[in-house]
Amino acid sequence: MEIKELGEFGLIDRFTKDIKIQNTSTVVALRDDAAVVSYGDKQTLVTTQMFMEGIQFDLTYIDMEHLAYKCAMATISNIFAMNGSPRQILCTIALGKRFGVSDLDSFYLGLRRACKKWNVDIVGGDTTSSYTGLAITLTCLGEAAPEDIVLRSGAHETDLICVTGDLGAAYMGLQILEREKTVYYQQIQEYQQKVKAAQDADDKLRLQALAKEKELLDAFQPDFAGKEYLIDRQLKPEARGDMLEVLHTAGIHPTSMIDISDGLASELKHICKESDCGCRVYEDKLPIDFQTASTCEEFNMNLTTAALNGGEDYELLFTCPIGDHEKLEHIEGVHQIGYITKSNLGAFLIARDGNEFELQAQGWSNQ
Amino acid sequence: MEIKELGEFGLIDRFTKDIKIQNTSTVVALRDDAAVVSYGDKQTLVTTQMFMEGIQFDLTYIDMEHLAYKCAMATISNIFAMNGSPRQILCTIALGKRFGVSDLDSFYLGLRRACKKWNVDIVGGDTTSSYTGLAITLTCLGEAAPEDIVLRSGAHETDLICVTGDLGAAYMGLQILEREKTVYYQQIQEYQQKVKAAQDADDKLRLQALAKEKELLDAFQPDFAGKEYLIDRQLKPEARGDMLEVLHTAGIHPTSMIDISDGLASELKHICKESDCGCRVYEDKLPIDFQTASTCEEFNMNLTTAALNGGEDYELLFTCPIGDHEKLEHIEGVHQIGYITKSNLGAFLIARDGNEFELQAQGWSNQ
Repeated sequence: MEIKELGEFGLIDRFTKDIKIQNTSTVVALRDDAAVVSYGDKQTLVTTQMFMEGIQFDLTYIDMEHLAYKCAMATISNIFAMNGSPRQILCTIALGKRFGVSDLDSFYLGLRRACKKWNVDIVGGDTTSSYTGLAITLTCLGEAAPEDIVLRSGAHETDLICVTGDLGAAYMGLQILEREKTVYYQQIQEYQQKVKAAQDADDKLRLQALAKEKELLDAFQPDFAGKEYLIDRQLKPEARGDMLEVLHTAGIHPTSMIDISDGLASELKHICKESDCGCRVYEDKLPIDFQTASTCEEFNMNLTTAALNGGEDYELLFTCPIGDHEKLEHIEGVHQIGYITKSNLGAFLIARDGNEFELQAQGWSNQ
Repeated sequence: MEIKELGEFGLIDRFTKDIKIQNTSTVVALRDDAAVVSYGDKQTLVTTQMFMEGIQFDLTYIDMEHLAYKCAMATISNIFAMNGSPRQILCTIALGKRFGVSDLDSFYLGLRRACKKWNVDIVGGDTTSSYTGLAITLTCLGEAAPEDIVLRSGAHETDLICVTGDLGAAYMGLQILEREKTVYYQQIQEYQQKVKAAQDADDKLRLQALAKEKELLDAFQPDFAGKEYLIDRQLKPEARGDMLEVLHTAGIHPTSMIDISDGLASELKHICKESDCGCRVYEDKLPIDFQTASTCEEFNMNLTTAALNGGEDYELLFTCPIGDHEKLEHIEGVHQIGYITKSNLGAFLIARDGNEFELQAQGWSNQ
């Protein structure tokens, strides 16, 4: 169905009808100029993130449902990074003519799935058109008791630096998707050259054979064997709210925390800047999955760079007092990778051979 | 300066350094994964709105500073439409290569001006690039005591329908801007034809004369004489928080309220839908400025259509009990334009000649 048949208000009705409110803090949702939320004696956390086609995502690799899921997880992850509980989400989306109602249906299905996973209510948004690509902004609200909130600015000298999960897998997943895209386009190009040659020679039999070949090409399935984990990390990342629960149960209250979206190095620099400190991270302590390592080798890429600067891991990076060392030892899925230093000592990686390399942050740049 | 010289984090530092926090409810702003806000026993209002280049705005007409101001007012207006006080704003912006640091400076200047007007704190956001146009999403948080919040759903049969200010002026302002754009492009086109003719004839003197003409063309100033109010309404709209204060002082508590962004007819239909009621609006009661009326005549356009469907007025549309009639009579800038009926009577305009016309809503459509 085309979007213009439904119109804006028809569309809104369509994708709001399946939304069920889960939080008592959600007072008014979806049907007014603003949503109303109420947190009693808790504090409200709010974060917003933008996702542009061609920049943050490529629809060649990801379908609308996964895209929405990923965007939601990336945004929810920011609330977890404050040690808060996500409660409400608002979604704005701008889409061009090439999108239909079924695309929006898939998008909202993915959004609802991600929100359901963390009991987040969809409470508002805005839908508009775009002359070109797809643009998405998600805003997430969360709650936390004032004393529970963990900022980027609380790290102290001698604190341990920890990360959850493993690093670099989402980035290597992207490398694989890009390779498969290249392979696919090469095959398409070769096919088109063959068709042209057959047409020029007026070779009807050959053209018939090529029509069969086209069927095979249309059914092209990228080869992800042995890379499933990497693809999953790229297309279906999970925000690590589960780890907050684990830390809480273990009696660990991080002194600072951030989620890893731009890459470990970049996030560590944020913590160092906001906490006015330095850090040392050990190359051999970086948690890396086997698939990430073997794919790095296959692609002849530097594994440490993938782990430090890959991004899109959505794992949690946090610091905690050195006294927590033993407690942390017993927690599965948390890795102690270094320690916080005085500010004037800078932010460095200690390589396997003992050499130190300055950590390089990299954010978005308008190139 | 080019954006890539500063990088994302340099940029953020640049446009956050002039932001001063004004609200005690703003606990943590700008420097973490999420902002922290705290409203005690008040409720939190939250609204989000998207603005796409070529759809919601055209940079031929509006500069970055005015654009930011307008987007902020449009978003803040949603908090006022709930009878709340705006407190915090978050801004996401995606921009292509053609934008430089000075464009972002202007944008944030406009954003700060709009926020300062209503003591709103800028507490977070996201900056990214775009392959094509400019995309902006603003999210505004506000506060209100639970008993003060006014929803779209509270209108009752016999309630009076009121609007603040006047209608259709922003829309007519847009018509003028579009006309001036057409005039300008015609002159450019004619000029280019003249240059081509002179080049073909190798007429050097003529080309010299044309170079002078080009200077005049570059200094083209659109003709807005006598239309200043309309241009102002289009390029620098103001959210009507001032009217909430006036209503409060007069002892009027609206039963339902909405801000007029898509046009009176569309917003009235929202109130009727959410309140499960109908309405009658009198054509001869619609508040219209003299400049709007005279420009409609000049453009041979229907004045009532401009007032009903023009949009971008950002005035407040509200209902209140019929008993408030006399109080309302004494309030300057508030106009009683009709009344609420039972749902089965529909939503109609009563024309000057007594005929009734069904009101037509119009939202965004993906044409």
